[in-house]
Amino acid sequence: MMGGMTEGKQSQQKTQGKQDHKAKQYGVTPQSEDFNDWYNEVVRKADLADHSPVAGAMVVKPYGTALWERIQRGLDDRFKATGHQNLLFPTLIPMGFIMKEADHVEGFAPELFTVSKIGTEELAEPYVMRPTSETIIGHMWSGWLNSYRDLPFLHNQWGSVFRAELRTKPFLRTSEFFWQEGHTAHASEAEARAEVRQQLDEYHSFCRDVLALPVVRGEKTASERFAGAENTYSIEGMMRDGKALQSGTSHYLGQNFSRAFEVKFQTAEQREEFAYTTSWGLSSRIIGALIMTHGDDFGLMLPPNIAPIQVVIVPVGRKEDFARMVEEARTLAAELEREGIRVKVDDREGLTNGFKYNDWELKGVPVRIELGPRDLEAGQLVVKNRTSEDKETLGRVDAVSSMDARLDGIQRYLYERAKNFMLENTVTVDTYDEFKAAIEAGKWVRAFHCGDPESERQIKEDTKATARNVPFDDTEFFGEREEGVCVHTGKPAAYGKRLLFGRQY
Amino acid sequence: MMGGMTEGKQSQQKTQGKQDHKAKQYGVTPQSEDFNDWYNEVVRKADLADHSPVAGAMVVKPYGTALWERIQRGLDDRFKATGHQNLLFPTLIPMGFIMKEADHVEGFAPELFTVSKIGTEELAEPYVMRPTSETIIGHMWSGWLNSYRDLPFLHNQWGSVFRAELRTKPFLRTSEFFWQEGHTAHASEAEARAEVRQQLDEYHSFCRDVLALPVVRGEKTASERFAGAENTYSIEGMMRDGKALQSGTSHYLGQNFSRAFEVKFQTAEQREEFAYTTSWGLSSRIIGALIMTHGDDFGLMLPPNIAPIQVVIVPVGRKEDFARMVEEARTLAAELEREGIRVKVDDREGLTNGFKYNDWELKGVPVRIELGPRDLEAGQLVVKNRTSEDKETLGRVDAVSSMDARLDGIQRYLYERAKNFMLENTVTVDTYDEFKAAIEAGKWVRAFHCGDPESERQIKEDTKATARNVPFDDTEFFGEREEGVCVHTGKPAAYGKRLLFGRQY
Repeated sequence: MMGGMTEGKQSQQKTQGKQDHKAKQYGVTPQSEDFNDWYNEVVRKADLADHSPVAGAMVVKPYGTALWERIQRGLDDRFKATGHQNLLFPTLIPMGFIMKEADHVEGFAPELFTVSKIGTEELAEPYVMRPTSETIIGHMWSGWLNSYRDLPFLHNQWGSVFRAELRTKPFLRTSEFFWQEGHTAHASEAEARAEVRQQLDEYHSFCRDVLALPVVRGEKTASERFAGAENTYSIEGMMRDGKALQSGTSHYLGQNFSRAFEVKFQTAEQREEFAYTTSWGLSSRIIGALIMTHGDDFGLMLPPNIAPIQVVIVPVGRKEDFARMVEEARTLAAELEREGIRVKVDDREGLTNGFKYNDWELKGVPVRIELGPRDLEAGQLVVKNRTSEDKETLGRVDAVSSMDARLDGIQRYLYERAKNFMLENTVTVDTYDEFKAAIEAGKWVRAFHCGDPESERQIKEDTKATARNVPFDDTEFFGEREEGVCVHTGKPAAYGKRLLFGRQY
Repeated sequence: MMGGMTEGKQSQQKTQGKQDHKAKQYGVTPQSEDFNDWYNEVVRKADLADHSPVAGAMVVKPYGTALWERIQRGLDDRFKATGHQNLLFPTLIPMGFIMKEADHVEGFAPELFTVSKIGTEELAEPYVMRPTSETIIGHMWSGWLNSYRDLPFLHNQWGSVFRAELRTKPFLRTSEFFWQEGHTAHASEAEARAEVRQQLDEYHSFCRDVLALPVVRGEKTASERFAGAENTYSIEGMMRDGKALQSGTSHYLGQNFSRAFEVKFQTAEQREEFAYTTSWGLSSRIIGALIMTHGDDFGLMLPPNIAPIQVVIVPVGRKEDFARMVEEARTLAAELEREGIRVKVDDREGLTNGFKYNDWELKGVPVRIELGPRDLEAGQLVVKNRTSEDKETLGRVDAVSSMDARLDGIQRYLYERAKNFMLENTVTVDTYDEFKAAIEAGKWVRAFHCGDPESERQIKEDTKATARNVPFDDTEFFGEREEGVCVHTGKPAAYGKRLLFGRQY
């Protein structure tokens, strides 16, 4: 399966031998050898997360938390700019609430964490730890909503949710994960549908502009819908092993939850109506997407717009110069900080330069500056981009004043690299044999489908691939309208276009 | 008990009759009539929080969440400036962990939320929802710590914790509450003790400078210590009913938790030693302190440095002018926002001016501007501080350019008002009769005590008052060193100074 990936790796191919050597020297398994091991080692060695003594739950370490906090801040600012407000709902939900929406209970019952004892008291009705909050928010809304004048409710919550997972993997699949869940209620279907799309587009532009992640916007097929939704939309990204990662979802819930929880209002015409509701979420699994979209055999590669540290300065030179070089590095850091750049000075003692270089490459810091006594005297700096093998020697003044542009360049490069990789590893097929071969080779597949859930199930059984989404007409990737016949059943194709299929995380 | 409060209410006394009338008209119980009702009504009507269907848990509504987010942001910036890093630990803790530190289990066992089922699987060892995270953090540290070079660990976590409460009250006492918990590990006792004090001082200066809350720093007596701590320090604030609110705590844990969880390191001298650890926390109950320290019979009174909205502009005038006035209000808002001020335009239709004025007073917005067609033509604005009964008519340019100074003035006024109230309602006593009378009158009491926990218990039984803390020598309030005999037992006084006693929330 990894064989299919080399097409997209041109920029790295040249130095592959050298990379493998260095990677092994510092103990990171190359992606091409075992992508899964590579991922787990990067998460651990870059200090993003650790296993915990709680089944299926991770501990997010300082570097991973700093990354998540920057993602939170960026999204939260966007949500607020479009009028959304944050609230804090309880972590627990009465078990009976989950039961009220038929599809919802069916979807979530097998994954619930149940609380049946508080102190020494056994509870008559147990609570569950929230797997998602539609039900309790619906309950609260029913008390808050009277008139159409109260609408829309544009609510969001940051927190963690709990869904039992057997096979876990840090950031991608854990029993407790961190997310935001947006919940909105509207007086009309049209307004609710516009919200669903607006928030999906917000995820898309945040991924594109901040995380340098190209993602495909589209609608999920019926069998991949959220439990209780009328329509589910997603953004899908391609990882460097060719698998898809669903990176955010936005749901049109119609009146399903408002009926179940009596979320009613009086219209301008004095009629009583149920509200039209939406929900949308993006979670800490987006960190998994960052790792697996941009990372290489040296480790993480963070886009400058999200990197907690954009530039690291490593003081080098003889031991007796170290304290002075650290001082000089701090002066340089202050100059860069005045340009609005996030800088770290590596003042750790007793470590070799090689160890430090490797450590910051592993952590994916976009730019490294080496500062030694000779360079200092010559008014020069040695600068290395994480995205390149080459060091550059630059005049100090120029290096500082051009740093912002350099970071922009790295940001653009990472997006283009990921986009090209996705395009090169997506194939358009018209026969089921081609379909199976392409999936086996680690590709995404564009194919017509009849829309029958049973056929989707069979495809999954045969190939482990699922329908990722039906790309929107107006998304930038794969959205062309076309007619054809189902790649699996030969029946007339549904959707008026090809679907995107792939194996998924 | 409320009788004792009138001493501190000079500034409000003048207009008490008018206030009561207005308060009742809009349906807020005056503080002097029933402080508890006043509190609950303000929380609900100012849209800070609501009850939830989960026993003992609240829903924090948008205005309350905005307030908490500003508190989080302010504290988080301070923690990071002193080198602390955030992490995310699991919400669940293996039951066995809680059992490992003897005092800890005794303190928390009666309050635990137990999870004994995941999906359909009954757990052999149940989990508890964290009541605090010392145990699981200790467990993780033991895996991360090797050498003295790894120390200090300066960690913090934002999240919610769970402790069963029978009688709940929004923000003050809920089964789930929101907080930060700092956890640090050090190579020496001295360094750990310095951390404990530094973080208590950070809480103190944040309360003073941002929340306009005067608080007394000091050490808790043995019977009021955190379960598992060697020393517990607190900041204590006085509410307008004379009760104390413990507003933040900082604990020196010695080696208690590091022994229980094997948090060991190799010293520079190659010896093995247990780390010295600390923890410190401040929670959403600080919002209760804001409400009850600054609020009056009109509702909340928010210090400008923390208020989510600092200035509200209410467009007034005839109905046919409303749309134009809203536009003008937006222009004015933009001018104020350029000065760095947080502004809201009240563009709600169909509400009377009186309703809006009352609503924003209830929400405690520091400054209200009324903007009508005649004022607009005259280049004037009507400005009213939340802290004053009087409206002022000011030239528009002046009103804008002086707004920052006006907000500073309100900030200072609120701190001084609260400080004077606390000083005027604290009495120094030397007999137990005086002690009981002062407590009954709703005062804080400064008195000598012998240090015997049994005597503290008896005092609590007699008076419902507890030892708040032993004020530090270098705190600004009540810290003078003195010798004397115990107000209760007549034995020689411990601590070398008077303790602060009071009834508490």
